[in-house]
Amino acid sequence: MTDDRLTERERRLQTIEDERAIERMIASYGPLVDAGQSAAAARLWAADGVYDVEGWVMNNRDDVAAMVASDAHQGLIGRGAAHFLGPAVVSVAGDKAVAVCESLLVVHRDDGYTVWRAGANHFELRRIDHRWQITARVTRPLDGRAQARELLAAGVAGSPR
Amino acid sequence: MTDDRLTERERRLQTIEDERAIERMIASYGPLVDAGQSAAAARLWAADGVYDVEGWVMNNRDDVAAMVASDAHQGLIGRGAAHFLGPAVVSVAGDKAVAVCESLLVVHRDDGYTVWRAGANHFELRRIDHRWQITARVTRPLDGRAQARELLAAGVAGSPR
Amino acid sequence: MTDDRLTERERRLQTIEDERAIERMIASYGPLVDAGQSAAAARLWAADGVYDVEGWVMNNRDDVAAMVASDAHQGLIGRGAAHFLGPAVVSVAGDKAVAVCESLLVVHRDDGYTVWRAGANHFELRRIDHRWQITARVTRPLDGRAQARELLAAGVAGSPR
Repeated sequence: MTDDRLTERERRLQTIEDERAIERMIASYGPLVDAGQSAAAARLWAADGVYDVEGWVMNNRDDVAAMVASDAHQGLIGRGAAHFLGPAVVSVAGDKAVAVCESLLVVHRDDGYTVWRAGANHFELRRIDHRWQITARVTRPLDGRAQARELLAAGVAGSPR
Repeated sequence: MTDDRLTERERRLQTIEDERAIERMIASYGPLVDAGQSAAAARLWAADGVYDVEGWVMNNRDDVAAMVASDAHQGLIGRGAAHFLGPAVVSVAGDKAVAVCESLLVVHRDDGYTVWRAGANHFELRRIDHRWQITARVTRPLDGRAQARELLAAGVAGSPR
Repeated sequence: MTDDRLTERERRLQTIEDERAIERMIASYGPLVDAGQSAAAARLWAADGVYDVEGWVMNNRDDVAAMVASDAHQGLIGRGAAHFLGPAVVSVAGDKAVAVCESLLVVHRDDGYTVWRAGANHFELRRIDHRWQITARVTRPLDGRAQARELLAAGVAGSPR
């Protein structure tokens, strides 16, 4: 048994832990915003992280928290909503990572639920202070326009936008 | 190379295996109940595990199996249904765990499919006889009421209800 | 510290990596086909891999690429569509594997989005040239007929069809 083999194993284990930490963050986003947990949702982002979603650009944690606390978002979850994100594909390179997933926004109506949006989500992350943080998330509707498709293709390839 | 480093690695590997075992159970639930596999679905629960879903409280494996075999459930899957659970966020502490995910119940209709429910799912699990088992699952619709939001917040925080 | 313990750890780590590689492939499928990435989507399959979806049988990578490039598929993503696959349950045995998940096909309409299909997806995979590749995928709608339910039951059990 050589140290080389153990170092190799350490690297593999660390990669899995990194990818899983990011998968967990992305899986937490929907439950957090649907619960109205503005501070915890904002903490997924870096202090100066960006969230750009269909013409609403947030530039830091406070902006993300303000979005969750906004009348628009509170009205949505007050009637009932699921920000339903699918399994993420995560690519880690050192202290940087890219992830991608699709999402559905399902909203409650008098007679049931309806799908308001299907979206493409591209995430850029960095390990900052020993914790993965979102530095940029861009979300665009899957409505036939090119940008959503470009986000998906770049995300699976592990490329920044 | 010290035993300490190897023990640390063993702990990390075990944590990943535990979380993955629970993720797999939760990912299996939809396919099992949509296939009508009542015994296999019930085996995800502990012998005296609880499943509390919108006013239907099951108190053990037999109750869960009976739900899957019920006319209500069989009618649903006889017409076509997907109990679609999203990626789970799992928190393990020793032989106990908490998990959370959102879910959609999509049902087949003459002219396509419709979303009947969007739900919040909070799971408590224990390692019993070397196998993770659900001791309590509570599911509530995301219809604006507080309980679903409380389940989501507790679940992401890794807290029991 | 004996080599035996390290070999056991190597086996456990390898199992996690194998399962995760397959989970990643399945999580990539939707983003790739919704982005119109025909070559990358086809590369998920083995050279002679099969994709059998509701009466459309593809028998190799070229067939899969042709499906993504087809007028039918391009029309779908040109209007906006999400091939939304849920978390997969993966069972690996040496160089073979079986996986299963449910899926939603969500399409864009003038007034929002609608769920066109809910499906059962059964995958058989092989490790070929050190890379997991799909040798057969069968997708059937969850519309009450038996075949979708059989695919789900076999998939969770880790059995080929």
